[in-house]
Amino acid sequence: MSERLYLFDTTLRDGQQTQGVQFSAAEKIQIARALDALGIDYIEGGWPGANPTDSDFFREAPQTRAVMTAFGMTKRAGRSAENDDVLAGVLDAGTPAVCIVGKTWDFHVTTALGVTLGENLEAISASVAHLVKKGREALFDAEHFFDGYRANPAYALDCLKAAYGAGARWIVLCDTNGGTLPAEVGRVVAEVIASGIPGANLGIHCHDDTGNAVANSLAAVEAGARQIQGTLNGLGERCGNANLITLIPTLKLKAPFRDQLETGVSDAALAGLVKTSRMLDDILNRVPQRAAPYVGASAFAHKAGLHASAILKDPTTYEHLDPGLVGNERQIPMSNQAGQSNLRARLASAGLEIDPKDPRLAQILDEIKRREDQGYAYDGAQASFEMLARETLGLTTKFFEVLRYRVTVERREEADGSRRTLSEAVVVVDAGGERMLSVSESQDESGDDRGPVNALWKALAKDLGPWQAMIDDMRLVDFKVRITQGGTEAVTRVIIDSEDGQGRRWSTVGVSPNIVDASFEALLDAVRWKLVRDSAAKGPAT
Amino acid sequence: MSERLYLFDTTLRDGQQTQGVQFSAAEKIQIARALDALGIDYIEGGWPGANPTDSDFFREAPQTRAVMTAFGMTKRAGRSAENDDVLAGVLDAGTPAVCIVGKTWDFHVTTALGVTLGENLEAISASVAHLVKKGREALFDAEHFFDGYRANPAYALDCLKAAYGAGARWIVLCDTNGGTLPAEVGRVVAEVIASGIPGANLGIHCHDDTGNAVANSLAAVEAGARQIQGTLNGLGERCGNANLITLIPTLKLKAPFRDQLETGVSDAALAGLVKTSRMLDDILNRVPQRAAPYVGASAFAHKAGLHASAILKDPTTYEHLDPGLVGNERQIPMSNQAGQSNLRARLASAGLEIDPKDPRLAQILDEIKRREDQGYAYDGAQASFEMLARETLGLTTKFFEVLRYRVTVERREEADGSRRTLSEAVVVVDAGGERMLSVSESQDESGDDRGPVNALWKALAKDLGPWQAMIDDMRLVDFKVRITQGGTEAVTRVIIDSEDGQGRRWSTVGVSPNIVDASFEALLDAVRWKLVRDSAAKGPAT
Repeated sequence: MSERLYLFDTTLRDGQQTQGVQFSAAEKIQIARALDALGIDYIEGGWPGANPTDSDFFREAPQTRAVMTAFGMTKRAGRSAENDDVLAGVLDAGTPAVCIVGKTWDFHVTTALGVTLGENLEAISASVAHLVKKGREALFDAEHFFDGYRANPAYALDCLKAAYGAGARWIVLCDTNGGTLPAEVGRVVAEVIASGIPGANLGIHCHDDTGNAVANSLAAVEAGARQIQGTLNGLGERCGNANLITLIPTLKLKAPFRDQLETGVSDAALAGLVKTSRMLDDILNRVPQRAAPYVGASAFAHKAGLHASAILKDPTTYEHLDPGLVGNERQIPMSNQAGQSNLRARLASAGLEIDPKDPRLAQILDEIKRREDQGYAYDGAQASFEMLARETLGLTTKFFEVLRYRVTVERREEADGSRRTLSEAVVVVDAGGERMLSVSESQDESGDDRGPVNALWKALAKDLGPWQAMIDDMRLVDFKVRITQGGTEAVTRVIIDSEDGQGRRWSTVGVSPNIVDASFEALLDAVRWKLVRDSAAKGPAT
Repeated sequence: MSERLYLFDTTLRDGQQTQGVQFSAAEKIQIARALDALGIDYIEGGWPGANPTDSDFFREAPQTRAVMTAFGMTKRAGRSAENDDVLAGVLDAGTPAVCIVGKTWDFHVTTALGVTLGENLEAISASVAHLVKKGREALFDAEHFFDGYRANPAYALDCLKAAYGAGARWIVLCDTNGGTLPAEVGRVVAEVIASGIPGANLGIHCHDDTGNAVANSLAAVEAGARQIQGTLNGLGERCGNANLITLIPTLKLKAPFRDQLETGVSDAALAGLVKTSRMLDDILNRVPQRAAPYVGASAFAHKAGLHASAILKDPTTYEHLDPGLVGNERQIPMSNQAGQSNLRARLASAGLEIDPKDPRLAQILDEIKRREDQGYAYDGAQASFEMLARETLGLTTKFFEVLRYRVTVERREEADGSRRTLSEAVVVVDAGGERMLSVSESQDESGDDRGPVNALWKALAKDLGPWQAMIDDMRLVDFKVRITQGGTEAVTRVIIDSEDGQGRRWSTVGVSPNIVDASFEALLDAVRWKLVRDSAAKGPAT
């Protein structure tokens, strides 16, 4: 019979300790929903009371199957748990579970906390007992446990026993500084279990400072621990936490874990793993790591000629598992069957039915690969993909042509000594044989400058001659910029989301070393997509 | 007594299997020199005969203390080693060592190779014997060894014994598909040693498909293997090879490895580890990973307020080792989670010692929070933080003032019908009472436009009067753009990374609805930081 292994996600708490990361409450809600859909057992939402955004999140937290958990710390020495304002703030969030961190390293108790070893033990047991009395599931994060155990094993174990004896459901062994190696983690976890804390109540919390956060978590589970704490994409302070996106497929698909343990992640959820990983990158506006285990774009890419030809005979020759299990795809340097059927599915969703034997399918694939080498990304820009396919298929109308444009951004001192920035754009278009010259500044209602891309959009949308009426209800709703690698040079990739009066939303992409040029290309694709879609229905509004 | 552990680098061979990576011969020479300086024992330079660049490299290979190694494969069945053209091509490179890969998984022998199990054993022993006869040190890469051992342990061991018996100095166990986990690696290595191949002749070659390449390498060494194969920054096919940049500090600094084993890497070379890692990123034009173990910019960054205050009392509270040992630095980033202790630590590292009771501390914190509300982020932009603090403390010099700037981006059709984009910037600066008017286009060596921010930087850096000499060695190395929420409006946040001739690297931030304005603000901060740092040392270069 297989035993249950619990997954505890701390992307919203420890993940937010990453340099440069600060989630809004809305982003936290989006991430919590994705974690719940993935089948995570516990979601640690933050430290209510210590951080206003975290308090906001708990107020608006979504209903989840996963156990929502608030984070805090043990009460201060010399005051009762009932009168500790930090504990009270954590309990106020009203979550079914509460995880509190406490010291287990004697050096930290005396140096960082400045209390006696006995006072710290009392703080742990009284705090845990208070949570239990309030009806909460209590988790105890044993901070610096492995360093503490190395320094003073008897005291470190006493701290765990204080929490366990007071009713903590989980005792979580934290490698806070991230310096412990797998063999030691395995040995120490076994010794903790031998000392009387059951493995079914033990969790592990690792950091990646030696590149071993994943291996340390696995070593702890092999030694008997039954909860893993980690984050999506390994987000977290310094080098990050144990990466749940990496751990989940290993636990579900690889011996001995797949045969002995069961998690809350279903096969269907596992097949959405790439999407879950990308969602977090999107929120953080990070370029996904190509080499990420299981979910990276290169994780199943076979460049070596010998490998690629063997893969064609039998994929198991150079793949440790089927990429589809985690929602990923094989990449080999030639257009394959899977690639073409993918392509046909995408074309069909744009209303373009193409015969499987049509040679233009290969042409479209080639063109996409050529563009992707330049830095384009079509996964998040379906409308640009459709425009590219239509062009290859000869299915576009040349509604208008841009003859030239010019954008100026100028900052100068005004007569009153204040600084003022102004953007101006001129666009010259040939629409149906007529030459249209449009100029626009970029100012919002309060007279503030909104930048060169806004000015360009306003100038372009000012006069498209016979097509003008069709774009009157169109507006730009989002604008994403990413610096990426195109060939050997860094280029800018711009993705623009547009919306129209019917509530349709579509995304287009532009790439160039020049950010204005990349934006303009995405703008043009957005306008042309709208014209293709609407003119098919109604014809030009002349 | 400590035993010798050998490091074998395959950045130039397996690292080149990475999607998008293709080194020139000159780049290979540069990397080989860096590997030699680091103290690597073997440098695998490529597959001569199979790849023209690799043959060029071996012709021009630098003299190294490290043993230069050529890569190839076992001879084909049905022909003698003497008459095998692939082996001959490898020997032609004239390297003191040759590493040949051969099959050890019965399924591969019959499916991919299409020969009998006996023919494959003969190919292994005859090929190795031929290398030895030619006076070369022979290494045997046992491809798919762990999969092979799982499928048919007796045959997999026979393959190793064929190579060892024929005189191979090293038998390297390869986890080619990257799917093996640490516990299995450790167990199998122990069984191989028990079967008669001494650990002193065993190497390990791991891939990171489950995120365990580093842990697998350590497990093999703990079981007795005495050579690790890996790459700089974990470059390599799919998810990459074992990362030597991560492994080296663990092997040198952490128990049990530091006490039992000795490598060729000196303490001084270890202190250059960050530079070696950055060198490869520079060649690949990749943004260095902030979260990389030991060498990442965030590897010793402390964001949590509690951690930062403890670090001030004693760095060992939240650091697993001294960052200086690997050439890295502690960072106490600013963020809204940080308290005054963070702030004082960060100020101290900028050379600004402020009394804890100084009321200006609260002023600086207020100003940071006000700016963060507008969309600024200081934890990834330490130099801008420092400039803001200096301003609040009245410690800045007004080196120069920008009176105005203008940037134009223009796209038009050329006479030949091609489209061309041109960016031009004009900057007017008052430096020491002198008015400087500078103009610049934005073109790289091949005449291609690199965009408005590049043009602005070139114009700004053209003439700063008395300060010009101080910024001549400064260059922009990265540029990140994020659309974020400042107050109620979406604004653009730009972060610019700069570098100078001393190898210093610093980050600055700018925020505005106008991307050009945001970039210009970050540029100005970058220049001013450099002037503050350098003028403190030397005074103006007038």
